[in-house]
Amino acid sequence: MVAVTIWNEFRHEQEDEDAAAVYPDGIHEALAGVLEDDHEVRTATLDEPEHGLTEDVLESTDVLFWWGHIAHDEVDDEIVDRVQERVLEGMGLIVLHSGHFSKVFKRLMGTTCNLQWREDGGQERLWVVDPGHPIADGLEESIELPTTEMYGEPFDVPEPDRLVFTSWFEGGEVFRSGCCYRRGNGRIFYFRPGHETYPIYEDEEIQRVLRNAVDWASPTAGSPRTFGERE
Amino acid sequence: MVAVTIWNEFRHEQEDEDAAAVYPDGIHEALAGVLEDDHEVRTATLDEPEHGLTEDVLESTDVLFWWGHIAHDEVDDEIVDRVQERVLEGMGLIVLHSGHFSKVFKRLMGTTCNLQWREDGGQERLWVVDPGHPIADGLEESIELPTTEMYGEPFDVPEPDRLVFTSWFEGGEVFRSGCCYRRGNGRIFYFRPGHETYPIYEDEEIQRVLRNAVDWASPTAGSPRTFGERE
Amino acid sequence: MVAVTIWNEFRHEQEDEDAAAVYPDGIHEALAGVLEDDHEVRTATLDEPEHGLTEDVLESTDVLFWWGHIAHDEVDDEIVDRVQERVLEGMGLIVLHSGHFSKVFKRLMGTTCNLQWREDGGQERLWVVDPGHPIADGLEESIELPTTEMYGEPFDVPEPDRLVFTSWFEGGEVFRSGCCYRRGNGRIFYFRPGHETYPIYEDEEIQRVLRNAVDWASPTAGSPRTFGERE
Amino acid sequence: MVAVTIWNEFRHEQEDEDAAAVYPDGIHEALAGVLEDDHEVRTATLDEPEHGLTEDVLESTDVLFWWGHIAHDEVDDEIVDRVQERVLEGMGLIVLHSGHFSKVFKRLMGTTCNLQWREDGGQERLWVVDPGHPIADGLEESIELPTTEMYGEPFDVPEPDRLVFTSWFEGGEVFRSGCCYRRGNGRIFYFRPGHETYPIYEDEEIQRVLRNAVDWASPTAGSPRTFGERE
Repeated sequence: MVAVTIWNEFRHEQEDEDAAAVYPDGIHEALAGVLEDDHEVRTATLDEPEHGLTEDVLESTDVLFWWGHIAHDEVDDEIVDRVQERVLEGMGLIVLHSGHFSKVFKRLMGTTCNLQWREDGGQERLWVVDPGHPIADGLEESIELPTTEMYGEPFDVPEPDRLVFTSWFEGGEVFRSGCCYRRGNGRIFYFRPGHETYPIYEDEEIQRVLRNAVDWASPTAGSPRTFGERE
Repeated sequence: MVAVTIWNEFRHEQEDEDAAAVYPDGIHEALAGVLEDDHEVRTATLDEPEHGLTEDVLESTDVLFWWGHIAHDEVDDEIVDRVQERVLEGMGLIVLHSGHFSKVFKRLMGTTCNLQWREDGGQERLWVVDPGHPIADGLEESIELPTTEMYGEPFDVPEPDRLVFTSWFEGGEVFRSGCCYRRGNGRIFYFRPGHETYPIYEDEEIQRVLRNAVDWASPTAGSPRTFGERE
Repeated sequence: MVAVTIWNEFRHEQEDEDAAAVYPDGIHEALAGVLEDDHEVRTATLDEPEHGLTEDVLESTDVLFWWGHIAHDEVDDEIVDRVQERVLEGMGLIVLHSGHFSKVFKRLMGTTCNLQWREDGGQERLWVVDPGHPIADGLEESIELPTTEMYGEPFDVPEPDRLVFTSWFEGGEVFRSGCCYRRGNGRIFYFRPGHETYPIYEDEEIQRVLRNAVDWASPTAGSPRTFGERE
Repeated sequence: MVAVTIWNEFRHEQEDEDAAAVYPDGIHEALAGVLEDDHEVRTATLDEPEHGLTEDVLESTDVLFWWGHIAHDEVDDEIVDRVQERVLEGMGLIVLHSGHFSKVFKRLMGTTCNLQWREDGGQERLWVVDPGHPIADGLEESIELPTTEMYGEPFDVPEPDRLVFTSWFEGGEVFRSGCCYRRGNGRIFYFRPGHETYPIYEDEEIQRVLRNAVDWASPTAGSPRTFGERE
């Protein structure tokens, strides 16, 4: 069984009534609920020692989820190093929504990961632009979300290896909302949907994407990454 | 000076009053007008001998434009071979709008190049998703077109080398509307805007894209393409 | 169980003593032997009706292998159309060695697929340049083949989506010898090793690559490829 | 005229007799000599204040060269931030040889940038695998270097946007020795050749590549990179 660790900043839900109303146990528990039937799921949060990401935890994680928003700067650089190293060794990484601005994602992308945004509660439609991608397995041609925060282009990331979703927003914007990367042996998926007060992760199609993404991001055996001096 | 040849099917404008009203001399002449100040421009049309694309014409062409819609099947396979060969040698190719279904484009892509469409005269906004690309030089963050035909995903083309534009449509769709490819030594740019009865090519920002695309698609010297048996 | 069809031109082995000595039942049977324990394997050859690739056969094939060399031109264009269509729908395609010049591969690539070559029986070493790729699962850092035909750059194909292997040749050349592409919903892997008189497919590491490639190229469910007019 | 700044660690040449014999004024001066006829060239070195890379210098630089080897750790993180920011805004960056392990390159790639190596003075042949790329303009099909340090795969970098050169080494290895990337609006070229005691930069074909790379990496106008909240 694939070992999934869900990391959540877990601040909104403890500080903000609206967020607590939607995610009373935290976004990490909501995500765990989506995945726990078919995966071995653990959670970790910012305020735990080592943010819950000890070497043992990371060593035994196949796929790591990352959700953060208002406290990116509080993530210790040493833990960022550790996550980066594990991704390059093969651990999958799924970065959600406002995690675009996390130290971990910026470190792995090498860019600002900046974008445009507007918190207007408008409609979003995620179009599958790569119907052959395993992350799109079993979806319809698009996913509709009635109430979302808008993210708009330009999105300052490297050109994705594969672009799976592009979002249409009621207010007139578009966004590359499902982006696949490989870095070292690790697979990275950035997936835009999510918010601390809109119940995006209760949507069944979004849940299907999250499960597909775990399958896609799981490590494969690969061949040796042997570096250094050769005889 | 870059030598541009503009190929147009030139049927709508001779058969259909609405098209003739917008492009009385044909779409090729309208495009020629956009480019002729800074380039050496020729035109060629379907009903000329060899569709106007003799070996001499192609040999002396740096960048070829392609506009076709209702008569793709009438293009001779031998001419398609000839265009493909010249692109692989280094000639640039700019495929416009309904040219997505031309034999030439399908030959070079290897896919169906199919898509969704709706002729509703709705609004389109082309977002620059790659602000560092030379085809975006001098543009604003997006281009607005008040009245267009909709093209929607999925667009069955290989993942572009660089995606420059993504379109938002009033009716709820998105489309990868500016796609860059290299095939052999040739640069290929697919650019969605255009229509036989909407005066898209009169838009100054669209004209800027067309000029930028010629600069980008022009051949470079390169190094030898030497194939075959080696000693 | 994944349904594999192995297509072989099957001419060398019937016309040439040296080839018959290495592959007495044909290259297709040798490849079938490699895969039949874990897959449902069929074979098809040029001289069968419809080259053995009827609509029924292709419809029930998950992954198609392609080996051809001296009779590429005898492959019927209608069958090429059929194979291309099935790949775009999702069938995997693994093109081996001299299959680089097959109609099927050239059709899907859109380029000449030309290269340099020398039949000198020299040494080849295939380096894994993408150790995280599933096609490299379980390999060492390189594969050594003591006696091969050389293929050298430039190789006139589109830039691969992922480059898995690069070959070093004793005579001084390099070659991108393991190239991954997606076209439509189909996965395509070009793998250089193979020859009609060198027993390349008896090498255990090469066999491991062939099995890995079948796993990688197998279709996934995907989402709808719905094209045409929208309401 | 394109404004080039050549950054060199400049330690080997001051500390090591062999390096001083080959590059008496430093590698930066040798590179400046290659480029100064057609470009506005400045140099900067590690031991200058702010490593010679003040905000003014970077602001007025179109293309930055980077050569470092034994003192990567002495480069101040603040200067690394500054260089990264300028690249994302559009400044070109050309990273040479052992610069693969510089903080600047690792920051922009997001990976370890590790590789295999052997200092054996063997022969290298750089094959052009992308003859249509402007960095290959005017070259032959390959460049021969009689005496080099070997760099071998795996090279832990993101899959290049375009791979221009692949090296063959006498000792049996291959290496992706000319890799193009875009990050933000900036163009990045990693070019393997170079060494502190082998006079690689005196080779005329290598000099041609350096000049071509400056042309390719020079900023274009682009369109706005506007981020943040939208109305």
